[in-house]
Amino acid sequence: MEDFLESGQPSKYLYDLIRDYPRRAGKGIRPALLLASCQAHGGSLREALGPAVALEMLHNAFLIHDDLEDASPRRRGAATLHEVHGVALAVNAGDALAALALQPLMESSLLGSRVSRRLIEEFLLMIRQTTEGQALELGWRRDNVVDLGPADYLRLVVKKTCWYTTVAPLRLGAIVGSRDTAALDALSRFGLYLGIAFQIRDDLLSMLGSCERHGKEALGDIREGKRTLMLIHLLATAAGRDRVEVVDYLASAESERTLVDGLRVLELMEAYGSLAFAREYADGMMVAACEAFDDAFAGARGAAATEFIRELIPYVITRTL
Amino acid sequence: MEDFLESGQPSKYLYDLIRDYPRRAGKGIRPALLLASCQAHGGSLREALGPAVALEMLHNAFLIHDDLEDASPRRRGAATLHEVHGVALAVNAGDALAALALQPLMESSLLGSRVSRRLIEEFLLMIRQTTEGQALELGWRRDNVVDLGPADYLRLVVKKTCWYTTVAPLRLGAIVGSRDTAALDALSRFGLYLGIAFQIRDDLLSMLGSCERHGKEALGDIREGKRTLMLIHLLATAAGRDRVEVVDYLASAESERTLVDGLRVLELMEAYGSLAFAREYADGMMVAACEAFDDAFAGARGAAATEFIRELIPYVITRTL
Repeated sequence: MEDFLESGQPSKYLYDLIRDYPRRAGKGIRPALLLASCQAHGGSLREALGPAVALEMLHNAFLIHDDLEDASPRRRGAATLHEVHGVALAVNAGDALAALALQPLMESSLLGSRVSRRLIEEFLLMIRQTTEGQALELGWRRDNVVDLGPADYLRLVVKKTCWYTTVAPLRLGAIVGSRDTAALDALSRFGLYLGIAFQIRDDLLSMLGSCERHGKEALGDIREGKRTLMLIHLLATAAGRDRVEVVDYLASAESERTLVDGLRVLELMEAYGSLAFAREYADGMMVAACEAFDDAFAGARGAAATEFIRELIPYVITRTL
Repeated sequence: MEDFLESGQPSKYLYDLIRDYPRRAGKGIRPALLLASCQAHGGSLREALGPAVALEMLHNAFLIHDDLEDASPRRRGAATLHEVHGVALAVNAGDALAALALQPLMESSLLGSRVSRRLIEEFLLMIRQTTEGQALELGWRRDNVVDLGPADYLRLVVKKTCWYTTVAPLRLGAIVGSRDTAALDALSRFGLYLGIAFQIRDDLLSMLGSCERHGKEALGDIREGKRTLMLIHLLATAAGRDRVEVVDYLASAESERTLVDGLRVLELMEAYGSLAFAREYADGMMVAACEAFDDAFAGARGAAATEFIRELIPYVITRTL
């Protein structure tokens, strides 16, 4: 990734910005999953490296735009890009990085033109799914949509998170490793369950994690009014004055929501069992992911890579970062 | 283009937004140039249609992000997308449209995979050039950079405008029409001169055109502090109090610049001959474009298409839209 980011002008207004998030510490779960899926389908690390780099670059491009769409102040333990450089340069840097992200797919001489083309198609499908999910989330918040249930949450998360976090990495790795001969349906199903569990854990971490550990602001999702599973559960179960309080909170301007207001919403989530509900929901997803894993990787090669992917299942719902 | 934009969910938060700018009346100069260049290189309209649609979609994606980066209130005679839907949904819609724009390149069965791959490479190069130019312009405005000369303007315009308005359309059409056998250097040179003339005319129209005719706000570029050729000339030639006045104007917050302040800058441009300078500069570019045209299209096929491209040279510096 460093190779693809190292040069270019103007550095002060573009390339320094593009290099910023990728150089902050991240989990790297998406490229890790892609590389392991390639090996589990008989491929080598080397031939999956280009697509893995492309995916991580695209992820960082998404983060730049997500952060300004959410008006988030912090990312990976430091100020967000739009806070440092302003919205205009941050939007432009995200655009540039998203296009640069496709470059490793074009340059990989290890992949034939047919596989290379399939990978680009997958990337475009993934971007489409992600922007559709992002539109739903932003629209629900802008219009303060509160009549939502867990099914709406699933619809949102499948598009917003699963596609580019789990489904696409697994599929891309399989396409490379199998030279586009692998069946992708069972793999996609596994990716969906894994991605939903990942996102619910993300929601919980945003509630519970401290600023230090998560690298974001305290109670970030609550203060941004994000339609997390806990919030959707709370809206569906809280009654009378409690529900009115939550709806009013969500209708207020984000800049006016205090930490105390946010803690009150968290208190209600605890009181109505919304946090426990989310934890149980994630556990259910883990069970489903285990079954789908067995189905998807029945004929897998590369024992170590396959085992790595299996171990991601408990990891995604116990992780603290 | 309508075919590629007609479906998709959520419509209210995404696809309605994506379809908005493409359905407002535009010149269509980029796809027109691409189609004509394809024919002038021995190709057919049909085989160039996919790339032409892709280019126009990408142009509309750029416009969405440009408008919010510039905080422009109007585009093509109506409110800009971020004014109607907010910055968050507009950023996301631009992202989605930029990815959708590559779809016609993938689906065109008329082009072989080798040509298709070359086209994607050209698109990525074009996006890279455009975002580099955009970064320069936004950075110069943010930091109120005022020690600029015509050479800086050329550097900016080649990246910001020429690549995706003239150079890439000409090259893309030639690649399709000649099945990637055409020499692109003379064509690129012609595109550069044509694009510079186009941008200078754009600068002049923003000064002189009314809101009704140009579809943008009155004195838009002056009020946005855009580094137009006239502004750069004014900064380089105005002396004493006049120059201080301009620099102070540019240092003020954009929201505080009144129409009267803007008219004063325009008055100074008139007094210092900046408008006449820009007109003469554009005339010089036209002469250079004519010579480069003869060089680039010496062996052209498709007489009508070639003539159409030649007639664009006087058009770009006399157009009123």
